[in-house]
Amino acid sequence: MTDAKEAPNAPDYSGLKAVFINCTLKPSPSFSHTECLMDVVQKIMEDAGVTVQSYRSVDHAIAPGVYPDMTKEGFDEDAWPDISKTVMASDILVIGTPIWLGEVSSECRKIIERLYAHSGETNDKGQYIFYGKAGGCIVTGNEDGVKHCAMSTLYSLSHIGYTIPPQADAGWIGEIGPGPSYGDKQDDGSRVGFDSEFTQRNATFLAWNLMHMANLLNQAGGIPEYGNSRDAWDDGVRYNHPNPEYR
Amino acid sequence: MTDAKEAPNAPDYSGLKAVFINCTLKPSPSFSHTECLMDVVQKIMEDAGVTVQSYRSVDHAIAPGVYPDMTKEGFDEDAWPDISKTVMASDILVIGTPIWLGEVSSECRKIIERLYAHSGETNDKGQYIFYGKAGGCIVTGNEDGVKHCAMSTLYSLSHIGYTIPPQADAGWIGEIGPGPSYGDKQDDGSRVGFDSEFTQRNATFLAWNLMHMANLLNQAGGIPEYGNSRDAWDDGVRYNHPNPEYR
Amino acid sequence: MTDAKEAPNAPDYSGLKAVFINCTLKPSPSFSHTECLMDVVQKIMEDAGVTVQSYRSVDHAIAPGVYPDMTKEGFDEDAWPDISKTVMASDILVIGTPIWLGEVSSECRKIIERLYAHSGETNDKGQYIFYGKAGGCIVTGNEDGVKHCAMSTLYSLSHIGYTIPPQADAGWIGEIGPGPSYGDKQDDGSRVGFDSEFTQRNATFLAWNLMHMANLLNQAGGIPEYGNSRDAWDDGVRYNHPNPEYR
Amino acid sequence: MTDAKEAPNAPDYSGLKAVFINCTLKPSPSFSHTECLMDVVQKIMEDAGVTVQSYRSVDHAIAPGVYPDMTKEGFDEDAWPDISKTVMASDILVIGTPIWLGEVSSECRKIIERLYAHSGETNDKGQYIFYGKAGGCIVTGNEDGVKHCAMSTLYSLSHIGYTIPPQADAGWIGEIGPGPSYGDKQDDGSRVGFDSEFTQRNATFLAWNLMHMANLLNQAGGIPEYGNSRDAWDDGVRYNHPNPEYR
Repeated sequence: MTDAKEAPNAPDYSGLKAVFINCTLKPSPSFSHTECLMDVVQKIMEDAGVTVQSYRSVDHAIAPGVYPDMTKEGFDEDAWPDISKTVMASDILVIGTPIWLGEVSSECRKIIERLYAHSGETNDKGQYIFYGKAGGCIVTGNEDGVKHCAMSTLYSLSHIGYTIPPQADAGWIGEIGPGPSYGDKQDDGSRVGFDSEFTQRNATFLAWNLMHMANLLNQAGGIPEYGNSRDAWDDGVRYNHPNPEYR
Repeated sequence: MTDAKEAPNAPDYSGLKAVFINCTLKPSPSFSHTECLMDVVQKIMEDAGVTVQSYRSVDHAIAPGVYPDMTKEGFDEDAWPDISKTVMASDILVIGTPIWLGEVSSECRKIIERLYAHSGETNDKGQYIFYGKAGGCIVTGNEDGVKHCAMSTLYSLSHIGYTIPPQADAGWIGEIGPGPSYGDKQDDGSRVGFDSEFTQRNATFLAWNLMHMANLLNQAGGIPEYGNSRDAWDDGVRYNHPNPEYR
Repeated sequence: MTDAKEAPNAPDYSGLKAVFINCTLKPSPSFSHTECLMDVVQKIMEDAGVTVQSYRSVDHAIAPGVYPDMTKEGFDEDAWPDISKTVMASDILVIGTPIWLGEVSSECRKIIERLYAHSGETNDKGQYIFYGKAGGCIVTGNEDGVKHCAMSTLYSLSHIGYTIPPQADAGWIGEIGPGPSYGDKQDDGSRVGFDSEFTQRNATFLAWNLMHMANLLNQAGGIPEYGNSRDAWDDGVRYNHPNPEYR
Repeated sequence: MTDAKEAPNAPDYSGLKAVFINCTLKPSPSFSHTECLMDVVQKIMEDAGVTVQSYRSVDHAIAPGVYPDMTKEGFDEDAWPDISKTVMASDILVIGTPIWLGEVSSECRKIIERLYAHSGETNDKGQYIFYGKAGGCIVTGNEDGVKHCAMSTLYSLSHIGYTIPPQADAGWIGEIGPGPSYGDKQDDGSRVGFDSEFTQRNATFLAWNLMHMANLLNQAGGIPEYGNSRDAWDDGVRYNHPNPEYR
């Protein structure tokens, strides 16, 4: 790795903003294996000029629920309205989650539920509010479940309006059975998973594909609104949907 | 619907090609509920100028396996090499599947296994062969499982290189329990699901988002190759992946 | 239904205990659709003599985490140690969850993470602590996902030691798209889903199969420990596992 | 392992019958990693006296579909009616599947679709035909997905009537990324995964829990029919389901 060749002409993506939400169950300052891998992707983005803001969800008093602001639904506290402002202002969202029993963490589901709470909002084209943004995820565990957690998380993002570029997930898991997790220090001083070329490659491709897609969407002014404006649809526009009476 | 307003300036996507693969278990000429909904999406695309080719997988002798041509692995027959040529030549792939026990059909998994068989191939930028294409899916059943089947199918497409635009799935299911499926004729002459505005809207948004994304990628010459060329990675290029020795 | 025939010889299961955990996101006293269906199963069990205790998880300050008592891990409060005592004392566990974006609720994952926290504990035979108990689930939503949520929840229960009887899930969902949920009052005074014979049947079968299985396991003194004692395995017992050296 | 302690009083289960269906994509005589692990479980059962019959599905001309005999639906050939007779005559069913893209194989889905085809059949108590049997699964891959594949497969079995004992799955996967699979010969002559105590333990517990559960069900004459007879339900029996009119 020390003599890694570099490709010429790295793009400058200094106009882009990204938000990373780490859904570990462990409050700071505990070490989070998921964060350890998220840091790799964040660093690649920052080196390309992207402004990145990151959150560890469990450190914030985010209420459960499916409304944008749960203090209006009877909860005393809710950190989500503030965090969601950053999400709305960002071109890229990266969700990180540990794996428990083969599934994403409860924190991850809570964040997705809160994102989903905004599914009734539309942008100035009448599209769902997350249109024009790119989403991806990072998953770590000690043995099993990266793909399953990724498919669930990426589908949720796609469903609410994010574009999912190719290979939009990266992760690390070890051989089946109990064992160390990503970033754990080993007796020889090395750290688990750091030498996995597979994880390195996926983290790199994830970072760049998210940036390319966000930039592509930005350059295009978002996704064209013909055919997908919720507001226009509700107003009666049908975009050539075949008339069921004549089918 | 008869007086649906139309939006002005429908894009002309006559340069695009799409392939639809219907993974019903029922050979032709049996009625396929899934095909009935796929036809809606296909019609919207054709009206926008897209050239569409469609297959019903069970009508073709597609061998099981994870190689591009299973006749080289001992099978007598394999229709996949021909079908895969159409997939490779198309900008858009739409997979349709019925739901059985809450999961995609065995035919759907077989098609995905065969697509995955090409994951070692790269384009002239060194990217995975499906980079630069847009993918989506259509799911029908009588009662449950659209989202689950969609998350599995879309993840597979994303994993092998497809870009997944927002809301890249459409489907129809009825209330829990046994009941009719999409397109079944009812006593009053109407057909099940045709009046579901939700399904109409999702089918429409799916069609247009796939076309917009395919066009966007075509205009951009595909996804930029900085950071995601498998060939360059294998040649030692690391695209600013942080050196693990210094972390 | 008013003239429903009754079968003779309903078993008396007055020795059994069951615990129901409702993982709705809505705190009391909000109406929970999931609870509305859980009540049916609870009533059938109570009529058969079973002692049932029920919780709505969001009403209790249950900390996130994967340890039995999170107050020992830095959290100020944790209601789980008390609730887990009821779980340990019960023969049957029924988890109820709403569906959000096709998945179980974050509360449901939190409860499963906390159950999993006990996976290192063993009973007096050396088996995992949940051996000898029967588990099931109830899932409600407005349109899609009963089977997906059930497979995730039942697998988690099976993995930690519960026995899953046949047809261990019941649920209600409506036709695809927005719509009312189980138990919502309709204009004509009826309540949504109450007339679904499919849901009635599944709720009934679920209730009785959980009771039969719990009783069967109780009568047998639990699952025989030959071949599944974690303590014995750790002590070197191999129960005829073929010696890999000779394979 | 050579000096593994043995527990006294191994049960004699010579009255039980089991059927193993291996859903690898590779026809015989190719080496199947999944079969290699299934053999461990089969050997433990045979040593306990169980009569085991095994199939590799891809070796048989099993038609796709959801009917018991697809030759009646237009297919020229269908090996399922014969295989299903063995399944019906067996107390235990073990399904083995490789993992492709984080999911079960297309062969596995095909087998489950064919099992599901019998869901309309009932036993002499009026219960679904698979009541009174125990089911489990074995999953192998090179890197990810045992739990996801297990939850899907076990749910399908539970749904059609099988009882799922605790820890009803066993599997092997390696660290994330490309790599050898279970049973592959390594340079030092050892075979991949054979030394995984985790896989050994799960395979052993799976084998014994399936036998214990099948025996328990046999001794009890199956699951009591009060509350779960499909035939009685269809005849109007409601088993104390609360009358919705009075709720």
